[in-house]
Amino acid sequence: MKKLINDPKNVVAEALEGVALAHPGLLTVVADPAHIVRADAPVQGKVGLVSGGGSGHEPLHGGFVGYGMLDAAVPGPVFTSPTPDPIVAATKAVDGGKGVLHIVKNYTGDVLNFETAADLALAEGIEVRAVVVDDDVAVKDSLYTAGRRGVAGTVLIEKIAGAAAQRGDDLDAVTAIAEKVNGQVRSMGVALTAPTVPHAGEPSFDIGDDEIEIGIGIHGEPGRQRVGLEPADQIVDRILHPILEDLPFASGDKVLLFVNGMGGTPLIELYIAFRRAAQVLAEQGIEVSRTLVGNYVTSLEMQGFSVTVLKLDDELTELWDAPVQTAALRWGR
Amino acid sequence: MKKLINDPKNVVAEALEGVALAHPGLLTVVADPAHIVRADAPVQGKVGLVSGGGSGHEPLHGGFVGYGMLDAAVPGPVFTSPTPDPIVAATKAVDGGKGVLHIVKNYTGDVLNFETAADLALAEGIEVRAVVVDDDVAVKDSLYTAGRRGVAGTVLIEKIAGAAAQRGDDLDAVTAIAEKVNGQVRSMGVALTAPTVPHAGEPSFDIGDDEIEIGIGIHGEPGRQRVGLEPADQIVDRILHPILEDLPFASGDKVLLFVNGMGGTPLIELYIAFRRAAQVLAEQGIEVSRTLVGNYVTSLEMQGFSVTVLKLDDELTELWDAPVQTAALRWGR
Repeated sequence: MKKLINDPKNVVAEALEGVALAHPGLLTVVADPAHIVRADAPVQGKVGLVSGGGSGHEPLHGGFVGYGMLDAAVPGPVFTSPTPDPIVAATKAVDGGKGVLHIVKNYTGDVLNFETAADLALAEGIEVRAVVVDDDVAVKDSLYTAGRRGVAGTVLIEKIAGAAAQRGDDLDAVTAIAEKVNGQVRSMGVALTAPTVPHAGEPSFDIGDDEIEIGIGIHGEPGRQRVGLEPADQIVDRILHPILEDLPFASGDKVLLFVNGMGGTPLIELYIAFRRAAQVLAEQGIEVSRTLVGNYVTSLEMQGFSVTVLKLDDELTELWDAPVQTAALRWGR
Repeated sequence: MKKLINDPKNVVAEALEGVALAHPGLLTVVADPAHIVRADAPVQGKVGLVSGGGSGHEPLHGGFVGYGMLDAAVPGPVFTSPTPDPIVAATKAVDGGKGVLHIVKNYTGDVLNFETAADLALAEGIEVRAVVVDDDVAVKDSLYTAGRRGVAGTVLIEKIAGAAAQRGDDLDAVTAIAEKVNGQVRSMGVALTAPTVPHAGEPSFDIGDDEIEIGIGIHGEPGRQRVGLEPADQIVDRILHPILEDLPFASGDKVLLFVNGMGGTPLIELYIAFRRAAQVLAEQGIEVSRTLVGNYVTSLEMQGFSVTVLKLDDELTELWDAPVQTAALRWGR
């Protein structure tokens, strides 16, 4: 295992120390129970947004804490759900009197622990809602979850719901926006290599030098099929068509096209994939009106990528364009 | 060779098509001779800034084209200098009547081709200056160059000189700011793995599963020494001390600390490295007043990182903080 780490046991804690040192004016990092909150939390009179899940997907979620996006992130151990305790602590830390929305990727552990945390927060008088993200069209039921998995679409939900909360929407309205985005976003991913979880010390799965996994999950969970290495355009086509058929997206739709790197794939390759995805959408009469390209939801050092397509309308576009100031996504301030 | 590409011959051209499709309002991409310019170029009455070099270091340089930073970027083939022709084209495209500054990383081919291009542009009536970036303290004279190499400090020079040009400084002043930053910035890198140039098809160098290269160049050029894999903190110490001794940085200095990923190292590991670097600076009484963490100057999919330290003063800090709007670096607008 070749990693830039000290001790596998300390990876998350030391990375969080680095996050705190790198973004002092933006974030406050609490070591125990581990959570990251906006430096100005709680924002009185604003709905609080909390997300979280296993670590190893950076910048998700801590990189999206700040003005116009998340109020807090709860990082579990690598690829392992955080327990209810830090989720409750984060929920309390960001409660500005208007309630808190939990944005939860659909993995069994995450869903259970966020539910338990919501019950505990409610017992302390905080109203909590949850949206469960399940944008991955690759498989239904998987190693880690029942139903579809939540993957890169989570970033779009966090941004858009975050903008709704920032403009002053109440808990019902922010929840409805998050649910709407989840209903209109679809993703699918591909792995070229396997990630290595630090405390495991070995790759999460075996994959040949000439093989790729179509429909990979963000923890290395199996996808739809294992095929031989192909040209990038064919790989993009393999995952883009199931995405488009699923909603379905149709000619005349305006969309946000997001090509996400899984951690080990360089940006030059992500742009090659973006090119093909944009070409296919254009051929189908789908207008790409907003874009995002880069490493936003990763699987440690795994080489691979995912494509996410979100159907936009005027409101979602306006919320996407609204100012955001986080470590990993920033514009307008 | 496991890459998300179509044909090794088309990697740069197809990635540029992707860049054009991903950032239509921000950039204009000219396919032949290949260069990327601000969508609103030339900006009349503003000094133009042009950088460039071999591809494979994305987002450098195309990701830094836009308001407050570069006016144009000239991408050569992977790890190969662009010829004078596209550099001349870019220089002409961004000339707003106040002259053009070339920001050139110190590699023999880049320096020669930018010099030739400057002569050709001058013959067409455009005044051109150049700053040659040589921030890498690892080695003096190397595979690709005489003198020190230009590496991740280039991003800081492009940002700060770009802000000076944007506020209306004349060519002398912008050049002086760029030279000043180059004089106060120092970097050094480490590789855990080797990159594979697409048209070569094989890793650029051999490195054992338990070895790392201290002082690596951004094209896989040899560094100072090959050592066994060590804890992250020791690796950071190995490169940070030569950086600090070189300027030298001293107690009481304010600095920008930049931990740069080489492409294949995940963000969670970069934050662990940042943590150690920030700790060492604090111990030495050096104040980290600005920070940058992420993949900004890469070597394809190479696993590794570099540390860059820039001594700040009030003017450089103000220019760093000034609004910037590019694909890879954005704040304030």
